[in-house]
Amino acid sequence: MKLYKKGDETSYTLGVFPTIELLIQKPEMVKRVVVHSSIEQNKGYPVIQDLCEKYHIQIDVHDRTIEKLSPKNNCYAIGVFQTYTSLLHNGNHVVLEHPMDMGNMGTIMRTMLGFGYKDLVIIKPAVDIFDPKVIRASMGAIFHLNIAFYDTFEDYHTQFSKREFYPFMLKGAQNIHQVKAVKPYSLIFGNESHGLDDRYLNYGQSVFIPHSEDIDSLNLSMALTIALFHFSKEQWEGKEVLKENV
Amino acid sequence: MKLYKKGDETSYTLGVFPTIELLIQKPEMVKRVVVHSSIEQNKGYPVIQDLCEKYHIQIDVHDRTIEKLSPKNNCYAIGVFQTYTSLLHNGNHVVLEHPMDMGNMGTIMRTMLGFGYKDLVIIKPAVDIFDPKVIRASMGAIFHLNIAFYDTFEDYHTQFSKREFYPFMLKGAQNIHQVKAVKPYSLIFGNESHGLDDRYLNYGQSVFIPHSEDIDSLNLSMALTIALFHFSKEQWEGKEVLKENV
Repeated sequence: MKLYKKGDETSYTLGVFPTIELLIQKPEMVKRVVVHSSIEQNKGYPVIQDLCEKYHIQIDVHDRTIEKLSPKNNCYAIGVFQTYTSLLHNGNHVVLEHPMDMGNMGTIMRTMLGFGYKDLVIIKPAVDIFDPKVIRASMGAIFHLNIAFYDTFEDYHTQFSKREFYPFMLKGAQNIHQVKAVKPYSLIFGNESHGLDDRYLNYGQSVFIPHSEDIDSLNLSMALTIALFHFSKEQWEGKEVLKENV
Repeated sequence: MKLYKKGDETSYTLGVFPTIELLIQKPEMVKRVVVHSSIEQNKGYPVIQDLCEKYHIQIDVHDRTIEKLSPKNNCYAIGVFQTYTSLLHNGNHVVLEHPMDMGNMGTIMRTMLGFGYKDLVIIKPAVDIFDPKVIRASMGAIFHLNIAFYDTFEDYHTQFSKREFYPFMLKGAQNIHQVKAVKPYSLIFGNESHGLDDRYLNYGQSVFIPHSEDIDSLNLSMALTIALFHFSKEQWEGKEVLKENV
């Protein structure tokens, strides 16, 4: 096993929890699982064992592999998998133009999953979503999502033209508080440093998130969190408790 | 100048932009400004010069100090200041119990400023807010805020009892979408790993943010962003453009 390099066809999860998420959501992509000899105490291990048995996946106990791939962390399990591409569903999409930050990317995936968004479109160039740092920051949320890549926004738009587009821009024409979502839709965000350029004013209904003049702009993760919260409101506003048995 | 250590009475900004924010918001706390000899090209330098002249603050050109305090970064200016405590106003407060992550702390300050919240209450133990990493992550937002520390939530509650309290909890009694804010109020959040414990159910109106069962919980920054967006809605929903001249 080698340390992951951008574009490798094989990547890996670091840690028991994301490895379980990988085994549940994408068992067909898993090549093998490597565990540390001290995993015996970990309450997630029986879950990993059951899943590996179910899907006929090999488990290797190999401390040096773990220490090599995760030198600084308390890591007990690594799930080695074949990278993949997914088909998008024709529901609501999140579109990110040139996202570049690995930590942000992971958090965004987790927030998407939290609000029930499962289709992510990435306009290249962009961060490598299969980098173990992204997987770790997503806490395994990545394996729940369909993620598709396009070279340009226009390519994506051509394929999915029959929907509403909401580009989020400082120059957006409508205040998010006044937007009523028309489904299916795509919520579009620029990258961490530039935002979307003016040509996006020509696609659908551009939106701004009002804030004080004391800051230049909200950061990408914050803007996206607010957008997903607002646009998915209808789905959640009737809920009376978060979980039945917290 | 020494590298900052937790609890030092003197701290510093790293970078031109936060140094300008410091000089505008808290000039009385500034001891001196240190700049790198290559700052001459930087368009923020005349602003720093004007502010230092106005407030009779000394500017030292000293490359080695800059390189010592900011070895990895392109940093052209450092604002050295006396740390301070602030008095809270009796408006709306954000209360954080035991926040521990420096990056989160900075982002939270920036989000607060973005939605017009200027009073931050921190229940100790907590991250050192004057650590240069927090200041950097806040992009200078820290200097706009009033920040007060308490040893226990009860101490804070005794002092500010005549207000509405909204603790954010997985077990919260009301869905955020159904909450209508009663002012003045305090929005209360637990820390990154534990959240608030059950005794907070006894304070005011506990709130949950509904999300899917595919994730355990939203992270602290996301939950706080959503809460501030929702609770400040009235102030922003009538805005027709984000900025007059973007």
